[in-house]
Amino acid sequence: MDSTVAEFDLIERIRRRVAARPDVLLGIGDDAALLQPPVGMQLAVAMDTLNSGVHFPPETAPADIGWKALAVNLSDLAAMGASPAWCTLSLSLPDASTGFVEGFLDGFLALAAHHDVALVGGDTTRGPLSVCVAVHGFIEPGHALRRDGACVGDDLWVSGTLGDAAAALSQWQAGGAIDPALRLRLDRPTPRVSLGRALRGIAASCIDVSDGLLADLGHVCKASGVGAWLDVDGLPASPVLRASFDGEARRRLQATGGDDYELCFSAPASMREAVLEAASAHAQVTRIGRIVAGAGVSAVGLRGAAWQPSSAGFQHFG
Amino acid sequence: MDSTVAEFDLIERIRRRVAARPDVLLGIGDDAALLQPPVGMQLAVAMDTLNSGVHFPPETAPADIGWKALAVNLSDLAAMGASPAWCTLSLSLPDASTGFVEGFLDGFLALAAHHDVALVGGDTTRGPLSVCVAVHGFIEPGHALRRDGACVGDDLWVSGTLGDAAAALSQWQAGGAIDPALRLRLDRPTPRVSLGRALRGIAASCIDVSDGLLADLGHVCKASGVGAWLDVDGLPASPVLRASFDGEARRRLQATGGDDYELCFSAPASMREAVLEAASAHAQVTRIGRIVAGAGVSAVGLRGAAWQPSSAGFQHFG
Repeated sequence: MDSTVAEFDLIERIRRRVAARPDVLLGIGDDAALLQPPVGMQLAVAMDTLNSGVHFPPETAPADIGWKALAVNLSDLAAMGASPAWCTLSLSLPDASTGFVEGFLDGFLALAAHHDVALVGGDTTRGPLSVCVAVHGFIEPGHALRRDGACVGDDLWVSGTLGDAAAALSQWQAGGAIDPALRLRLDRPTPRVSLGRALRGIAASCIDVSDGLLADLGHVCKASGVGAWLDVDGLPASPVLRASFDGEARRRLQATGGDDYELCFSAPASMREAVLEAASAHAQVTRIGRIVAGAGVSAVGLRGAAWQPSSAGFQHFG
Repeated sequence: MDSTVAEFDLIERIRRRVAARPDVLLGIGDDAALLQPPVGMQLAVAMDTLNSGVHFPPETAPADIGWKALAVNLSDLAAMGASPAWCTLSLSLPDASTGFVEGFLDGFLALAAHHDVALVGGDTTRGPLSVCVAVHGFIEPGHALRRDGACVGDDLWVSGTLGDAAAALSQWQAGGAIDPALRLRLDRPTPRVSLGRALRGIAASCIDVSDGLLADLGHVCKASGVGAWLDVDGLPASPVLRASFDGEARRRLQATGGDDYELCFSAPASMREAVLEAASAHAQVTRIGRIVAGAGVSAVGLRGAAWQPSSAGFQHFG
């Protein structure tokens, strides 16, 4: 923790709003937090930073920044099938604005409460607006959903719908009005925590779609030593995306846009019913392709023609 | 983890250089790391960010930035008496300079290797130069050195010498030459990990001196509900500090300067011999005052006169 009287005020302000968990033996306020991991569980740890102008438009509401900073990290735990427990937060602020911090905490702590995640430590420092979060979750030994578990013949699935966040971003970049429903998907992504938990023992591999489906699926293929066949025209789209973007623009947003934070997972074809049953209480899931022998992702578009995106991946913005 | 081909290259570059630990079941390369906490131990977690121009001069060598980013975090574990195990790293870079990253890793991984710490995950993103690190260590239940354990009558101790880092900073701010020995203390602080471990069961309270002795000791007093009496003129100083700064300037640097990352701890007077014995293999320790009834820190200077610093705490720079 570093100094300035303002920082101590901010930390005290944060500490007053933080929820308790019985496995947090010592939370905010010492040199380190003291935590009691549950016996027999493995620890899943992820860490992601959001920088202003790179990962969110500078004019994003503080509460949305807070929500998203935690959401993208919880999404990493979801993609492992882990149960979230604790997080730490490092907040760099150009000035010690308590208004910003209170708004930020509104979004951050609302999502934390929803997932029973305790904020246990971190720091606040002076610097360009930046939020770094580390999350800790628990997973039963041998049950983690890894990128390297995909097998030839697996069905390929995705949760929810794809492309809304990238669509909001493209509207923002074009300087026009942003559809509120799309903007909500960009600013307030839903980490698929309960879906990830439900897929333990069912999915063979899993990743969250943060960089764009093609790029993220590419990681799974590389880690698993397989290829993937992807039906780009069959990707699930929201009604608002369908209404606002025509076929090719929509396919590009869905296949290469990032920030959706849906889960892309593979499962043996024999598990098709089990997948639908497990997912039913948590999220819509759609079969979008298959794991095949080889390497890399073969995307197929309209009428079965090979499909190539105009840009290879999601480059963020700013 | 976020995208761009360059980011994947950087992550692969980092992964190739990272050391293994048997309790790291899955390291860099998936959505989260999978770790196996040891049975019967508590987890100590700390997180600190260094921003360019705020926590280090922009022209600092990449290897020094890497060293310091891990050192300040290990210092937090040292102050708890915890044994370091794992860390995650979030690196924000203005551009994807592999030269910077390799230099950064030289410093970061040298210190990690010294303490057998495995880098298990994190991300690299585009943004103003900033380094966020989270560290995880283990501590036996009931043995953590906390800020709230100081008792009236305890001796007050500090490790090493104080003021060198702040002296280097003041020379840098004055625009003159920086003494290399002082600069080394600013750029390459030594986290007192083995001393912290040795003080388990001996020290009653502990904090690392990052914000300046008066400020940090103030935290201990507040957390413990006690006061402290501090002999400012008796603070341990390095020969180079004594040679370069006269009495009052030196007292101010030692009492209010930050970034020394020494341990300030209290222990019952009956433990005096035990403290010296425990510390002997790890660091020089000096008695600098006493825990008293009341609140706040009473600093005493030359010939027992009450002493007030000209500025209340370390405000970093930039």
